Amino acid sequence: MKDKKPLNVSEASIGTNPELMLWESEHWAAMLDIYPVVEGHSLILPKRPVEHVTGLRDDEIKSMGEAIRKVSGMLKKTYGPGLLMTMKCGEGAARTISHLHIHVMPRRRGDRLWDGGKSRIVLDRTSGFPRLEMDRDKLKSVAKRIRGVK
Amino acid sequence: MKDKKPLNVSEASIGTNPELMLWESEHWAAMLDIYPVVEGHSLILPKRPVEHVTGLRDDEIKSMGEAIRKVSGMLKKTYGPGLLMTMKCGEGAARTISHLHIHVMPRRRGDRLWDGGKSRIVLDRTSGFPRLEMDRDKLKSVAKRIRGVK
Repeated sequence: MKDKKPLNVSEASIGTNPELMLWESEHWAAMLDIYPVVEGHSLILPKRPVEHVTGLRDDEIKSMGEAIRKVSGMLKKTYGPGLLMTMKCGEGAARTISHLHIHVMPRRRGDRLWDGGKSRIVLDRTSGFPRLEMDRDKLKSVAKRIRGVK
Repeated sequence: MKDKKPLNVSEASIGTNPELMLWESEHWAAMLDIYPVVEGHSLILPKRPVEHVTGLRDDEIKSMGEAIRKVSGMLKKTYGPGLLMTMKCGEGAARTISHLHIHVMPRRRGDRLWDGGKSRIVLDRTSGFPRLEMDRDKLKSVAKRIRGVK
């Protein structure tokens, strides 16, 4: 095992307070978000400043899953099994901090992200946010287009 | 390289139409979501049915990052750099499909997840959804609690 690298965060809004650190490995670190949506709201980020997930190197990519599983396990043991993980890349995703980071939030039924039994997260089919109406032929043509750039 | 394993999806709502598949590796597969929020809305999932991210085996975890980077790259080349990735574990996260899956959605400024220049995703600080008011001492005690279960 090589020596751990220091975290290289140039953006103060992420914060580097050692007391808020949760875990670290050679390439990844986890800490509390200083603007939590729920208690235990954590951030997982590569120690090297990388803007887009596609910019991660092979050694960083190989240890990315370990960081996600480790921090998820710590939050599960602390708060229970409900977890929401999100990551945004690019300005088109309304991302505000350019150093790549993954949010991991403990969730439980009736918490403040819950809205009358329905999650406010629009990705949730129960949220009432309408999905696109896309028939199988359109879906197939979209899949073909995406596969084409492989 | 071992032979690729088949995808083992017992839940029809994920779908296993080969024409909607985007990519696969030994342990992971990617396909279009059949209820897309935006065009190109994709799912990445382990071939083995696993309910919670903490239940992934070491070999699955080591290749998780590759799946995320690969599919993100395909969507970036097809639609541009904006991406939203989410994963929910546990009923407390309003998860409706128990086979673990990661959503990856192309995003762009002004898309249907965008709301008057503000993302509707509540995790976004510009969404207007209030963050918790938690001072440094409280944050430090939360971090200490979570670190304690490591």
